[in-house]
Amino acid sequence: MTILSTLQDVLGPQGLLTTEADMAPWARDWTGAYASTPLAVARPATTAEVSAVMAACHASGQPVVPVSGNTGLNGGAAAQGALVLSLDRMTAIRGIDTAARTAEVEAGVILSRLHDAAADHDLIFPLTFGARGSAMIGGVLSTNAGGSNVLRYGNTRDLVLGLTAVMADGRVMDLMGRLHKDNSGLNLKHLLIGAEGQLGIITAATVKLFPKPRAYATAMVAAASLDAALTLLHRVQAATGGAVEAFEFMPAAFIAGHLALVAGAKPPFAEAHDVNILIEVGATAPRDATPLDDGTVPIVTLLEDTLVQMMEEGLILDAVTARSEGHRREMWARREAAAEITFARRPFVDTDIAVALPDVATFLAEARRRLLVLDPAASDLSVAHLGDGNVHYTAYPSRDDADLKAAIREMVEDVVQDLRGSFSAEHGVGLSKLGSMARRKDPVALDAMRAIKAALDPKGILNPGKTIPR
Amino acid sequence: MTILSTLQDVLGPQGLLTTEADMAPWARDWTGAYASTPLAVARPATTAEVSAVMAACHASGQPVVPVSGNTGLNGGAAAQGALVLSLDRMTAIRGIDTAARTAEVEAGVILSRLHDAAADHDLIFPLTFGARGSAMIGGVLSTNAGGSNVLRYGNTRDLVLGLTAVMADGRVMDLMGRLHKDNSGLNLKHLLIGAEGQLGIITAATVKLFPKPRAYATAMVAAASLDAALTLLHRVQAATGGAVEAFEFMPAAFIAGHLALVAGAKPPFAEAHDVNILIEVGATAPRDATPLDDGTVPIVTLLEDTLVQMMEEGLILDAVTARSEGHRREMWARREAAAEITFARRPFVDTDIAVALPDVATFLAEARRRLLVLDPAASDLSVAHLGDGNVHYTAYPSRDDADLKAAIREMVEDVVQDLRGSFSAEHGVGLSKLGSMARRKDPVALDAMRAIKAALDPKGILNPGKTIPR
Repeated sequence: MTILSTLQDVLGPQGLLTTEADMAPWARDWTGAYASTPLAVARPATTAEVSAVMAACHASGQPVVPVSGNTGLNGGAAAQGALVLSLDRMTAIRGIDTAARTAEVEAGVILSRLHDAAADHDLIFPLTFGARGSAMIGGVLSTNAGGSNVLRYGNTRDLVLGLTAVMADGRVMDLMGRLHKDNSGLNLKHLLIGAEGQLGIITAATVKLFPKPRAYATAMVAAASLDAALTLLHRVQAATGGAVEAFEFMPAAFIAGHLALVAGAKPPFAEAHDVNILIEVGATAPRDATPLDDGTVPIVTLLEDTLVQMMEEGLILDAVTARSEGHRREMWARREAAAEITFARRPFVDTDIAVALPDVATFLAEARRRLLVLDPAASDLSVAHLGDGNVHYTAYPSRDDADLKAAIREMVEDVVQDLRGSFSAEHGVGLSKLGSMARRKDPVALDAMRAIKAALDPKGILNPGKTIPR
Repeated sequence: MTILSTLQDVLGPQGLLTTEADMAPWARDWTGAYASTPLAVARPATTAEVSAVMAACHASGQPVVPVSGNTGLNGGAAAQGALVLSLDRMTAIRGIDTAARTAEVEAGVILSRLHDAAADHDLIFPLTFGARGSAMIGGVLSTNAGGSNVLRYGNTRDLVLGLTAVMADGRVMDLMGRLHKDNSGLNLKHLLIGAEGQLGIITAATVKLFPKPRAYATAMVAAASLDAALTLLHRVQAATGGAVEAFEFMPAAFIAGHLALVAGAKPPFAEAHDVNILIEVGATAPRDATPLDDGTVPIVTLLEDTLVQMMEEGLILDAVTARSEGHRREMWARREAAAEITFARRPFVDTDIAVALPDVATFLAEARRRLLVLDPAASDLSVAHLGDGNVHYTAYPSRDDADLKAAIREMVEDVVQDLRGSFSAEHGVGLSKLGSMARRKDPVALDAMRAIKAALDPKGILNPGKTIPR
């Protein structure tokens, strides 16, 4: 019996796609940089079906690429000749426990659906990013996704209490639970989160929910410099006791890109500025969120007092506070158009780096300086989760030359390594950073990863040829 | 050349102890339950020396037990016939970066020394527990220690940005850094934290520091029930926006044990109560910490308003707010005498379990009920990080009978498993929970742990016979 007929038996006709037309959504990725022809697309509906698929593939040595929302930017879901294992039919939100503030969800739940479900209980699942309307929990966990609220709530791994995973041989590993402390042996939960499907397939998870902030103070701020922006961050954190939820940097080129790309887009300020910051503070305590007699909301006043003070000091050049939820959403829409703005021009070399916060300005200046040495006609574009030291720096070379693009990527990595940063902050490795891993990651760490991969997936069938360089 | 003469060459006379007298501090543990005769005690002073020791031991297949403060409660540092590798000479606080709020420390730094060093900069390293005057960073990380401030700041793993580890074969793995986002392959940092020295020896780490709270509101509260106590926790969290730093439960027997054991100890209230809670709220924002004209501190008022309201509702029976730092320390001293109080009577069966918060009351009632079935003359004692669902439940059987003690341990595990809790919340596995691991941990997870152990320590020389059952 061939693997496909075995899978057909396991999954039924609905569960296995084999025609080019049916497989089309999985044959390309969002960036357009990765196209592939899968052997087939398996769409199991339960953990037990995922287990049966993996047992069959393990028996026959069939490579498997797990895919959930297919919104990754690094080719992690490319599946040439492999079986795509799509989690998109595992869409149950199994339960929300409002007392414990947890949600148990399956891997195919779309992130924005979890947001909505939590909101029904006046709770939030705080992790969010531009692709939230397509990205699914399985991919969110497998890539340890970041986004705009990491500053306050942490990365994905900080929000996961338990999970279920199917291992390479089809066995089901039960790490489900909703405990805040659990020191029972090696922490396999954290090993599976961010492993990009190399060690097992996450099929369900229990995640933390948080009280929905009762009020937000949101502003666009033109800072005099990146250092002045960091002063703003530190002062607002001190004034609010660490309530800054997001602190996002957009340079002038980003604002211009947004205006050029999006119909009806408005500039944040009358004049163009170099350092545009979106800052958002969340008030969870009543005393910060309850409007006073004059209508002012304390959390907004706390932010505005800091802004006024810093304008007087010349550290802030202009600032606008959101006056309505619609105004706030307009500010966020600009930031969340980042992927569209970044990939609107080609050729590009996109990166996703992290350095210590005080080093962001050095990174940006040095990367641009060296870019222009390599290609005097090149340009660049950045957008940054500045509060995390995470910069999405994209270079646009003047010609589509593979050697030039490789040299630019090397150059960015050199600058990052000099600053003891990471060449992969939140998007992960996939295919596009595989060379970076080989060049930049500590060799002892690489060997340990290879040993763990071989130990847990001895036949090398899980998402082969990605994440961990040979 | 024997392994000892090789080590003598590597470490010099100061670095290798071989006489019974010199080795005495490492031949027993704090609980008195584990005694052993090590082959020798190696005391390397640098990561390079640790590396050389491990290379020599790897070459000759010599078992190694890494030890730092030797304050563990589960026999994880017992070293019969093994080489003890003590980190106690690696005591450098390499640097504190006040802007980035990080500290880079070596494994032999005593926890309270790090507390003091951070305090010099008006910062805190929030992790704390009773043994902080002896416990060292290496052990803190290797056991993913918990303690009393996990509720607000997380477990040890949540506080670590980077680390250096020496692997079984002596190679040095560089995972050092101070990044808030880093998705570059499998997360080996989280795998090493809490691995109890099974996979490598952590020699240094970069940890997060936090702003020192400007004021504390600390109180002893007699709640009408455990459910009423949880209502108190939720209300104070809501009122303060999640600023509760500690929420500790001590039953009447604990208070009585403290009075009996500690000279000069005072009861928290005029009358004895069943549910005594130590609650502490930390104010990091000026508006919560700056005394008003009448001398009241807003954070204290927020707590006291909630206490008064709940007394009117009959949910709180008595409450005392700390009126001075001395008074606050007296409240904490009672809680931190837990280990002394617990181990003052023998025989005992101590446990360290976690359940979901609403299940703590069920756990306590059911464990006592079943204890008295097994041994009608037994008694028990609990102390709990109630805000984390983490209970240290200790049973005192009426006779020192190994079978009875094993039956009691099994019984507690049964109750925990029925509640989907963990038999090992924060103390780890070591020797004493090895049987529990074999009985209670998911078998697929156990196999994965064994495979990872074999992959990274193929000769099985790192802390053999512990943590991961064969």
